Amino acid sequence: MNEQNALLEAFNGTEVQLAGHGKREVAVLKEALAGVEEQLAADLYGSGAVIEDFQTEMAGVLGKESSVFFPSGTMAQQIALRIWSDRKGSKRVAYHPLCHLEIHEQDGLKELHHLEPLLLADKDRLITLDDVKNMGAGIACLLLELPQREIGGQLPEYAELEAISAYCREQGIILHLDGARLFEVLPYYGKTAAEVCGLFDSVYISFYKGIGGIAGAVLAGSREFTEESKIWKRRHGGDLISLYPYILTAKYYYGQRIGRMAGYYEQAKELAALFNSCHKVSTLPEVPVSNMFHVHFALSREQLAPVLIQVYTETGIGLTPRLKETGEASCAYELNIGDLYSGVSKPALEEAFRLLDKLLQEG
Amino acid sequence: MNEQNALLEAFNGTEVQLAGHGKREVAVLKEALAGVEEQLAADLYGSGAVIEDFQTEMAGVLGKESSVFFPSGTMAQQIALRIWSDRKGSKRVAYHPLCHLEIHEQDGLKELHHLEPLLLADKDRLITLDDVKNMGAGIACLLLELPQREIGGQLPEYAELEAISAYCREQGIILHLDGARLFEVLPYYGKTAAEVCGLFDSVYISFYKGIGGIAGAVLAGSREFTEESKIWKRRHGGDLISLYPYILTAKYYYGQRIGRMAGYYEQAKELAALFNSCHKVSTLPEVPVSNMFHVHFALSREQLAPVLIQVYTETGIGLTPRLKETGEASCAYELNIGDLYSGVSKPALEEAFRLLDKLLQEG
Repeated sequence: MNEQNALLEAFNGTEVQLAGHGKREVAVLKEALAGVEEQLAADLYGSGAVIEDFQTEMAGVLGKESSVFFPSGTMAQQIALRIWSDRKGSKRVAYHPLCHLEIHEQDGLKELHHLEPLLLADKDRLITLDDVKNMGAGIACLLLELPQREIGGQLPEYAELEAISAYCREQGIILHLDGARLFEVLPYYGKTAAEVCGLFDSVYISFYKGIGGIAGAVLAGSREFTEESKIWKRRHGGDLISLYPYILTAKYYYGQRIGRMAGYYEQAKELAALFNSCHKVSTLPEVPVSNMFHVHFALSREQLAPVLIQVYTETGIGLTPRLKETGEASCAYELNIGDLYSGVSKPALEEAFRLLDKLLQEG
Repeated sequence: MNEQNALLEAFNGTEVQLAGHGKREVAVLKEALAGVEEQLAADLYGSGAVIEDFQTEMAGVLGKESSVFFPSGTMAQQIALRIWSDRKGSKRVAYHPLCHLEIHEQDGLKELHHLEPLLLADKDRLITLDDVKNMGAGIACLLLELPQREIGGQLPEYAELEAISAYCREQGIILHLDGARLFEVLPYYGKTAAEVCGLFDSVYISFYKGIGGIAGAVLAGSREFTEESKIWKRRHGGDLISLYPYILTAKYYYGQRIGRMAGYYEQAKELAALFNSCHKVSTLPEVPVSNMFHVHFALSREQLAPVLIQVYTETGIGLTPRLKETGEASCAYELNIGDLYSGVSKPALEEAFRLLDKLLQEG
């Protein structure tokens, strides 16, 4: 067994974990269904109260005319960009170099829709108003991801977001929001979802990040836009005869957790400060702006794994099941605060960080 | 309220129904989950025992090296044809004019994959060996649907199927099976699924037709083929973080119903004979070759609806909630035998058909 397997095993043996909502297991579905009547009718190819009512509710939350439930954000966002591209008569769209569409979707946008993305900004920083102003003519749609996940969940200041939105409207460039973690950034912005979405022409949100559902997404915009998205949803093979297992869990966990986002954000700041107090550890961003951040270590995975295993074993607190190599003598992992963090006692947490710091200092 | 709404309402008020497995409602999911442990781990982007074990099981059933679980058949089949088209270096594929890809998918195959289908046979008959021999050069892949749903679920004789398969192999034409209702035709053919699938290079099966799951499909073939299909599954947005709600229901209802297919077939023949004994009614096929057939009436929907409503009201037996207009003075509906048929007593059934025939004779 190598160090990384040993780390996973030690993590699985811990009593409490700092991140997430808990294990992804069937209990998640069963809990959501417990209060649902057996006689509730399934949705049928996008029709029926179970899907239509939730779409109406989410359109209201996002301040858009209409919304459509999708099995995945991958499908929803490719379709959004395709519609805007067709509307504008240009195959050129713009997004961040670490956009989900660019690095996690096997180039579906290019292979299925033949769109031509322009990568804005460097991969280690946010897109700025200047980037947008310099992107040249012919861009149908600009996609912004809030927060920018792959760089730790960073956010532009709200004023800059407003300026980008105003510029795009002025220039006739469509603005689409990758809001996979939209609800998670609202406490920092001090805005409602509808206020943020008001800056965008179309919006995608996810139900299995901060919300903690099983899968599923919503795409929102004008009714004309969402009606067109339903045609593409069928083309993609996403107009399933029934999507209710995902809809019911999305609705249940949205109800459970939407009010907890401010708490997750405060806890993320508290936890990031604990990490930053340790030798050879830093977080990105240093002060989180949502429930997420990345934890960077100035040690190789091989050096760090035994340290973490000792922390897990001695304190019963699990930090991460795995580490990503980021250089010859550095590694990192992504952390999302969820329901589990509240289950860790403050003294035990401080004890774990004292031990972590001590071991890193010695190492 | 027009006649068709009145028909639906009268159907919903019946005590027993002749077709299907029962209502599509949350009870279907709850029943399947009842015996599943809460601690069962979710699948994660195609990995994990819950998805991998079921894929292995289905590959075995279908006699193929490997299989992949998909959220929908629409997605699975477009991808199958795309892979074969790329492999053969030709955008031309061939299928029946009433193929699902041609009439129910908003032209996804053309819009997303830019394939060029050749429509074989007339829309009201099966594809024959002669059609295949005459389709000309350059066809990458031929798709056959068993049974051909849109014409009542007709089937070629097995010897003709074997001859088509042999011809395609000889000519280097890939043969793909749309087996949405494959399990339902095995009693007629007297073959195993693996024997039928042995005639094809790739196979798609569905879990919400005769099996009665919620949604979901499997695509099977060589490992090289299924590995490539996973890349396209991600591109389509079908590689959901978790598909277990569909997998667990597919597995449960497959276990429940795979052994009942022969019974459904016998019952379909019995019921079709009852329909054919009535005036102005005929079934297609006259003698079913699976659990399904179409019921054709030589009356308009407007004339027939009050007749059916009277049958439903007086006997408590529901035939169909809706009718499809097929001409100025004709209409039809599709019927699939499932679990419900066994719940109808023979005397009550015969009484209902006596009344139906009497009313049609008078009408």
